[in-house]
Amino acid sequence: MKKLKVIKIGGKVIDDEELLTSFLKSFSEIEGLKILVHGGGTIASDVGRKIGLEPVMREGRRVTNASMLEVVTMVYGGLIAKRIVAALQGFGTNAVALSGADLNVITAEKRPPEPVDFGWVGDITGVDTSWITRFLEEKVVPVFAPLTHDGLGNLLNTNADTIACEIASAMTKEYETELYYCFEQPGVMNNGKTVTNLDKKGYAKLKDQGVITGGMIPKLDLGFLALGRGVGSVSIRSATEVIKQTTGTELIL
Amino acid sequence: MKKLKVIKIGGKVIDDEELLTSFLKSFSEIEGLKILVHGGGTIASDVGRKIGLEPVMREGRRVTNASMLEVVTMVYGGLIAKRIVAALQGFGTNAVALSGADLNVITAEKRPPEPVDFGWVGDITGVDTSWITRFLEEKVVPVFAPLTHDGLGNLLNTNADTIACEIASAMTKEYETELYYCFEQPGVMNNGKTVTNLDKKGYAKLKDQGVITGGMIPKLDLGFLALGRGVGSVSIRSATEVIKQTTGTELIL
Repeated sequence: MKKLKVIKIGGKVIDDEELLTSFLKSFSEIEGLKILVHGGGTIASDVGRKIGLEPVMREGRRVTNASMLEVVTMVYGGLIAKRIVAALQGFGTNAVALSGADLNVITAEKRPPEPVDFGWVGDITGVDTSWITRFLEEKVVPVFAPLTHDGLGNLLNTNADTIACEIASAMTKEYETELYYCFEQPGVMNNGKTVTNLDKKGYAKLKDQGVITGGMIPKLDLGFLALGRGVGSVSIRSATEVIKQTTGTELIL
Repeated sequence: MKKLKVIKIGGKVIDDEELLTSFLKSFSEIEGLKILVHGGGTIASDVGRKIGLEPVMREGRRVTNASMLEVVTMVYGGLIAKRIVAALQGFGTNAVALSGADLNVITAEKRPPEPVDFGWVGDITGVDTSWITRFLEEKVVPVFAPLTHDGLGNLLNTNADTIACEIASAMTKEYETELYYCFEQPGVMNNGKTVTNLDKKGYAKLKDQGVITGGMIPKLDLGFLALGRGVGSVSIRSATEVIKQTTGTELIL
């Protein structure tokens, strides 16, 4: 089977246009088949605030009311996605920006309002890999925004880490898939040092000790989920170190 | 040769979500191969104003400074494009939202700052039809936002009527192409009546008489340009009448 890298970027690398451009230059130099999944950084909150919408978070996740859905559709599906694709074209890498609605690639259902009403947020129900494969075979990089749709005409906001996990999992049918979660830190940190390997036991221990907290927990849960579904390797690493194989935290089943 | 309809929508049909949904339902019922090109209506100006950007127009066209380029990228490439694609999927029509940067479909060059500096505005230099054809053959509707790129990493704002004209012209190599410019009026109006047929002489006369003015002039110029390049039929009509063949203004060479 051919190898495929699914690389997710989020955090400061999205917010800072210079960092993003520098990441995309490195990304364009990665050999072989690759998919990029991007988060929204803090730009959606910033744009929301400018038009008078205060971000509402519950349990660390954004509540997406109808106005905030418009904002994330603009920011994730428009500003960030098209900027990434134009920059990649500038580096000689052909790319296409996709939401889950485009080509019906990712379907989702609106999350039930109980126990917590997150609004227009979608839980993924299916990934159709046919067009993704076609793009890859023609040397086109699919670039995914964290937006899905319900097939009934509605867009849904969907966590980018989850999209990366689901795409990587679905692609294992046809490719030897590697999943990279990239952000501003070198990996999972313990006492100022990068944890180079992390198995489920070690993860449970570091969680108990309060070393692993907050947004890293769902990220690692998704990473272990992907590994369990046959993704060949999953790592957490710095966006600036994405092409070096010597750094970051490698998850182990 | 197979037939292909290139349908451009703009104006109020974009601004009003209910009108847009009703148009998209009719659009999804049109038989055969089709491409949709959308303008931005007044939403980009509205969003710009909300974040403190006053729209600047020169000679009836928008001046796109760096901040306004961000706004049109969000609104055209994100909000409107993704809303259209999600709605079409809801009506059972597979679709993909594209800017010129996606798949390198439409390249452009930044318009020179003399005689009028329009900012980040692009004049089209090429349309690559290969992916468009592939989508059409797989029953996917390509949906174009009025954004292009320069191949150097920059997005450019490009008039939607021009994009429709250039795509329709480029597709004549492989398809018998029809171009429809749709907006809120039934066609070119003269004394409250729709002009059913318009040739270049008639056009010149109505321009001289001050019957045809403003934004209709570049639209008709583009229509006649497309006809001259081999597009089989060009008409100006109401977005609500797009599937009826009995209304609107038909251009004649």
